[in-house]
Amino acid sequence: MALIVHKYGGTSMGSTERIRNVAKRVAKWHRAGHQMVVVPSAMSGETNRLLGLAKELSPARETDAMARELDMLAATGEQASSALLAIALQAEGLPSVSYAGWQVPIKTNNAYTKARIESIDDKKVRADLAAGKVVIITGFQGVDDHGHVTTLGRGGSDTSAVAVAAAMKAAECLIYTDVDGVYTTDPRVVPEARRLTSISFEEMLEMASMGSKVLQIRSVEFAGKYRVPLRVLSSFTPWDIAIEEEAASGTLISFEEDLQMEQAVVSGIAFNRDEAKISILSVPDKPGIAYNILGAVADANIEVDVIIQNIAKDGKTDFSFTVHRNDYARTVDLLKTKVLPALGTDHIEGDTRICKVSIVGIGMRSHVGIAAKMFRSLSEEGINIQMISTSEIKTSVVIDEKYMELAVRALHRAFDLDQPAA
Amino acid sequence: MALIVHKYGGTSMGSTERIRNVAKRVAKWHRAGHQMVVVPSAMSGETNRLLGLAKELSPARETDAMARELDMLAATGEQASSALLAIALQAEGLPSVSYAGWQVPIKTNNAYTKARIESIDDKKVRADLAAGKVVIITGFQGVDDHGHVTTLGRGGSDTSAVAVAAAMKAAECLIYTDVDGVYTTDPRVVPEARRLTSISFEEMLEMASMGSKVLQIRSVEFAGKYRVPLRVLSSFTPWDIAIEEEAASGTLISFEEDLQMEQAVVSGIAFNRDEAKISILSVPDKPGIAYNILGAVADANIEVDVIIQNIAKDGKTDFSFTVHRNDYARTVDLLKTKVLPALGTDHIEGDTRICKVSIVGIGMRSHVGIAAKMFRSLSEEGINIQMISTSEIKTSVVIDEKYMELAVRALHRAFDLDQPAA
Repeated sequence: MALIVHKYGGTSMGSTERIRNVAKRVAKWHRAGHQMVVVPSAMSGETNRLLGLAKELSPARETDAMARELDMLAATGEQASSALLAIALQAEGLPSVSYAGWQVPIKTNNAYTKARIESIDDKKVRADLAAGKVVIITGFQGVDDHGHVTTLGRGGSDTSAVAVAAAMKAAECLIYTDVDGVYTTDPRVVPEARRLTSISFEEMLEMASMGSKVLQIRSVEFAGKYRVPLRVLSSFTPWDIAIEEEAASGTLISFEEDLQMEQAVVSGIAFNRDEAKISILSVPDKPGIAYNILGAVADANIEVDVIIQNIAKDGKTDFSFTVHRNDYARTVDLLKTKVLPALGTDHIEGDTRICKVSIVGIGMRSHVGIAAKMFRSLSEEGINIQMISTSEIKTSVVIDEKYMELAVRALHRAFDLDQPAA
Repeated sequence: MALIVHKYGGTSMGSTERIRNVAKRVAKWHRAGHQMVVVPSAMSGETNRLLGLAKELSPARETDAMARELDMLAATGEQASSALLAIALQAEGLPSVSYAGWQVPIKTNNAYTKARIESIDDKKVRADLAAGKVVIITGFQGVDDHGHVTTLGRGGSDTSAVAVAAAMKAAECLIYTDVDGVYTTDPRVVPEARRLTSISFEEMLEMASMGSKVLQIRSVEFAGKYRVPLRVLSSFTPWDIAIEEEAASGTLISFEEDLQMEQAVVSGIAFNRDEAKISILSVPDKPGIAYNILGAVADANIEVDVIIQNIAKDGKTDFSFTVHRNDYARTVDLLKTKVLPALGTDHIEGDTRICKVSIVGIGMRSHVGIAAKMFRSLSEEGINIQMISTSEIKTSVVIDEKYMELAVRALHRAFDLDQPAA
C-alpha cells in the first residue's frame, strides 16, 4: 500500500496491443492496493514523425519562435498516448484520468526543446488518487510562466516521472523500458555485457551522461537530489507475473550506503558518439577566459560536456571542449562571430568524428592505478587518446570514433566485466 | 487593411506541401496589409486515426470519463497542424505564433466531444496582431471552467473560426475547403448541380442542418447571430492568384437584405442519411409528454432533429423523432430503461435505414404550393413519405434511404435547379 510511479517508454506504448498490456500491468499494481501515477512517453516513432514534418517545412536553423512551435508540436505525442492509456485503463474497469503538463501543472523555465522543471503542483493528482483513480501524467512536457508549452528534451519523460515521484514522495519510481536493466556496457557492442542488479546513483549518473540510453541523465540527477528510489525494468515481461517478482527485477538505482554487495572497482563502460570537439588555440592566458568562451555558449542554451584547458606556454593557452553534434555548427558560428574577435584569436579547430569512452565505478575512489590501466589497455590496441577528463568515479577519453567498439571491448575485458561480480 | 480570419480544412492541411501552400496564401494576404488569424483543422485522416486507436482500446459505449479522454486525444490533431503551420509561416519569413484552445483561451461548456463555445478572450491575439504576427488558433477545441480540454464535434473548426471572427469583429471569415462553394445539391448525386454565388444565412443553416457537409451548422448559426460575413471557397486554387479574384470566389453566405439578385424559390436540395427514426406509440396524451421524453434525451446530450407528434386518438398519441444514427442504440436504451416505464407504454419502434431530404429556399415564404409540388414529385417516383416537417424556408421529408438519390434528382429537376438562376 504505497504511492508508486510507473514510467513507460515509447516502445512499451508502441501499439494499442502494447498499451493494453501496460493497462493490465498498471491495473495489477492498483489492485494490489497501490496508488498509481503513470507517466507514458509518446508512441514510438511519433515524436520523430512530428519533428520530421517540421523539418520538411523548415530545414533552416532554429529560431526561438520556431523552438516554441516545435514544443507545441512534439508535446502532442505524449498527450495522445496518455489519453489512450486512460481509455485502456477505463476499459479494464479502472477509473482513470490523464493530464497534460500544463494541466497538472508541471512548471518549467522557458528554454524551449530543453526546458527544466521548476515545480509540480500535486493537488489535483492527490485528490484523484484519493478518489481511487489511476492518474496519468504526460511525460516530456510542461508549461512556462506565460502559459507556453515546453518540452524537456529527448528522453524527458524519465525526468517527468522522477520529478513527479519526488514531488509526491513516491515509494518507488519504476522505469519500464525495452531493455531489462542497466548493463556493464551496451550488449550490442559487447555481447558478454552483464546486467547489474544494482548500481549507485553516482555511477548511473556517469553512465547516463556518457550516452547509456537507458535513462535520461537529468532524471538520475533528480532522483539523486530528491532521493527517489529508481528501478529500470522491462515492460516486455508478461503483465501477469507475480508482483513481487516484477518488483525485484531489472536494476535498482540505489544510494551508495544501501548497496548490499561488494562493488567491483569498475561497474561499467559507457560511450557516446553524439559529441563533437571544438578547440580554440593560442588564447591569451588571463582570468575570465573560460567564462568569456563558455558564458556565450551557455547563454545560447548549448550544453558543454568535457572541458579541458592546457597549461599556458608563452602567455597563451589552448582551450577545448565538446558539445552535442547537433549544436556543433551553431557553436562554431557563435564563437567565430561573437567570441573570438574579443579574444584576439581566430584559431579554431573542430572535429565531429570523435567519440567519448569512459570507465565508471565507485570503487575507483579507493583504488589507485585504474586510469593507468585504462590508458595501457587502449595503447595496446593502438588507439590514440585526444582528450582526457577525470572525475572521482569516472575516467573518460575522447578518441577517433572509428575505434569506439574496439576500445569498449578492450576495456570491458581489461576490467573483468564479463565475469560475474565478486 | 482589415482583420481577416482564414479557416483551412483537413484536406487543405493534408501534407507538408499543402501546409506550405496555405502558408504562402496567408502570407499573400498578410503582405496585402491585412491582420491575419488562421484556424486550421487537423491534417486529413489524423482525427480518424486517433479515434480509431481509442476504438481499438475500448469498443464499449462511451462514458463521460472516456469522452474526456477522447477530447484530450483528438485535440492533439489540431495542436500539431497549428504548430506546423506556424513553422511554415516562419519559413516564409512571417512572424507567427500558434495557440491551443486553452491558451487563448476559448472557453466552452463541459459537454465533451460536443462542447459549445461560451467566450473567447482575444487579448493575447490582439497583442500579437499589433506586433505584426500571424496568429494561428487551433480549431475544434476549447477548455472548460475546470481546465479540461473539450472538442466541439465533427467540423468544429468551422465554428472555432466563426467564433473567433465574431469575438474579434473580423471583416470577413473565409472558409477554405476542398470544394469551391455551396451547390444547389451534392454534385456527386446530381451532376447538374450548380454552384451558388451567394446564399442567405437562413438557407445555409437549413442546408447545413441537412447534411450539406460544406459547413458545420453551428458555425452558420454563430455567423448569423453575430453577423459575421462568411465565404466558402476552394483552397486548391493556385496560392498566387490575385487577391481580388480570390476574395470574390466561392459562395458568400450573406444577410438576406444584402442579397443582390433575384432569389430562386428553392435554392437547394439538402439530404442526410446520418439519422435514425424512433417512434413511441400509444403514449397518454397529456401535458408534459414531449418534455418527459425529450428532456431525458437532451440530458444525455443527444441531439434530436425532426420531432413529430400526431393528433391524439382515444386519449393516446404517437410521438416520433430522429436522432443521429450513432446515438440511436443509446437513445433506445435510455428510453426503455428510464422513460417508457413512467409513460405506461413499452411500444417503441425504430428504423436506422432512413434518410431526410429537404428543399430549402427563402422564396418559399412568398410562394404557395411549393410543398405540394415536392410531394407530387416524390409521389410520381413512387416514393413513400414517412415523416414530414416544415419550417418557413424548408420542407423536409423522411423516406426510405434506398430512394435518396432518386428523390434528390427528381426534386433538383422539378425546381429547375439545373438551370442558371433567373
